[in-house]
Amino acid sequence: MTDDTPLALTLGDPAGIGPELTLAAWRARAERDVPPFLLIGDPEFLEAAAHRLGLFVPVAEVDPEYAVEVFPRALPVWPLPSGTRVATTPGLPDPANAGAIIESITAAVELVRARRASAVVTNPIAKFVLTQVGFAHPGHTEFLAALATEPGRDAPLPVMLLWSETLSVVPVTIHVALRRVPDLLTQDLVERTARVVHAGLRERFDLPAPRLVLAGLNPHAGEAGTMGTEDRDVLAPAVAKLRSEGIDIRGPLPADTLFHERARAAYDVALTPTHDQALIPIKTLAFDDGVNVTLGLPFVRTSPDHGTAFDIAGQGIARPDSLIAALRLAHRLAARP
Amino acid sequence: MTDDTPLALTLGDPAGIGPELTLAAWRARAERDVPPFLLIGDPEFLEAAAHRLGLFVPVAEVDPEYAVEVFPRALPVWPLPSGTRVATTPGLPDPANAGAIIESITAAVELVRARRASAVVTNPIAKFVLTQVGFAHPGHTEFLAALATEPGRDAPLPVMLLWSETLSVVPVTIHVALRRVPDLLTQDLVERTARVVHAGLRERFDLPAPRLVLAGLNPHAGEAGTMGTEDRDVLAPAVAKLRSEGIDIRGPLPADTLFHERARAAYDVALTPTHDQALIPIKTLAFDDGVNVTLGLPFVRTSPDHGTAFDIAGQGIARPDSLIAALRLAHRLAARP
Repeated sequence: MTDDTPLALTLGDPAGIGPELTLAAWRARAERDVPPFLLIGDPEFLEAAAHRLGLFVPVAEVDPEYAVEVFPRALPVWPLPSGTRVATTPGLPDPANAGAIIESITAAVELVRARRASAVVTNPIAKFVLTQVGFAHPGHTEFLAALATEPGRDAPLPVMLLWSETLSVVPVTIHVALRRVPDLLTQDLVERTARVVHAGLRERFDLPAPRLVLAGLNPHAGEAGTMGTEDRDVLAPAVAKLRSEGIDIRGPLPADTLFHERARAAYDVALTPTHDQALIPIKTLAFDDGVNVTLGLPFVRTSPDHGTAFDIAGQGIARPDSLIAALRLAHRLAARP
Repeated sequence: MTDDTPLALTLGDPAGIGPELTLAAWRARAERDVPPFLLIGDPEFLEAAAHRLGLFVPVAEVDPEYAVEVFPRALPVWPLPSGTRVATTPGLPDPANAGAIIESITAAVELVRARRASAVVTNPIAKFVLTQVGFAHPGHTEFLAALATEPGRDAPLPVMLLWSETLSVVPVTIHVALRRVPDLLTQDLVERTARVVHAGLRERFDLPAPRLVLAGLNPHAGEAGTMGTEDRDVLAPAVAKLRSEGIDIRGPLPADTLFHERARAAYDVALTPTHDQALIPIKTLAFDDGVNVTLGLPFVRTSPDHGTAFDIAGQGIARPDSLIAALRLAHRLAARP
């Protein structure tokens, strides 16, 4: 499907670094083998952004069906279905654009579900801009899960995989206060997360028998209950249950000795109880080219693993490495049968 | 003082990898520029350990004053003052050796305080072996702090610095259940820890104006209190207070973006609220040659940053890199006026 079908790239917050990264990714298309993508937004806004940065980027307003053909010579942009226009000052997020930001996401999902695009790649958004217009989802991931929900069914459990060439990690809890983690980390949550990861690696990545490890919550994975009981009483039973289902998972293992080179060779993905246990090693080892992949959705979705960076937006200094890696990985994952 | 004064190296648990690492460090003395050290233990036990490993290592029973002179041609060993002998099977810790393990530590501290040795370097111990004979300290560090306490004074606050060529970190809380960390992490503890680190880097390391950073407790350092309030209400006031005292410290900063190469260039040491926030990045970047340095003591103390490794003891496969790094760093720190 991917050879003549573009990736659907969302607008993200137009006041952040998304527009300049989009332009930079298109400009690097030959040199860095960037797969064809279609930005869903406003062609004139992209032209203005290129002009402001002093870049010559031809922008082509096209339907998805022409994006791959146009891509070598122009940046394909599909206008928002509602016709909404975008205008902003870099670095100054404006709630007036919230509708366009959200519509770009819903339109991308619709294109992929209609097989007019192969996967969704999202530019960064800032939640505080969207909550001002009543957006109630904690973030992109949960919003995409809601969009993917079949009528009358529960929303799927979306799982955030942070992928890089050197390391892949899944934080089991994400954007919550550390104080809440020990109680949120139930055996059920660990099991459901691991099942989504296992299925996602089998179906999307080229891994028929993915090897998972689970890091401990406490220092040294609790040392047999002497430094916290959750590893022994919650995580170990989850691992035993998952293994009984045929999932290759080991743990809970001390988190600190899980990420050096020899340790990494023994698994495909490491699940961690806290946000920082996962984000610290991947951002230490692959700061510029980590990719955020959402597993558990009925379509492929990736995004760069950084935010809107309003503080440097419009200067042309933001590195497009992570967006390019997200586009390349989405193309690879969508190519799987 | 260090040119004719040896480092005092403790026995550690004789059933662990300490004896073979000690032999390996001595054998690497020329090739890896290992400074002269004196093992405090049992000469015949070391000879037997060498024999069992098939190594030819001449062992010389000497007083500390002759250790530096002897070191090029023999491994200097000082018998325990009590005359206690050591015998063990590698991998099988034996509480019968607990007395010798503890005496080696107290004797090393006495040698350093009497200026007969320049610094203390400790081989790994296993706490569960020592608690069986009534050893009540949580570990080496706290025991050394008790030994360093002047009569009638409070024990000093010992601070664990994990040092490597690429990164140095200090976990503000160490071997405690993660659930307890938010309450243990008081403004007072953060301030006292940072003061010990600041003073230790000035006095021991060649850093007249050390640059400290403090990682946040919560994801993204709490994002202005939306994901946990401790960063805003406890850590930020501690940083403000420390800065008012002239200490160069920034934070709380998101822990995940603190350890990649560009970020590391902006500080000398990173303090982190939890054990894993510090141990994950240093063990990811410097797994074999991290060194544990205790700051806040009236003498220099280092140790390798690994444990007794009973599971591989006696096989001769344990890497001496961390012990060698600990010996080299102790020598360097003790040479400061």
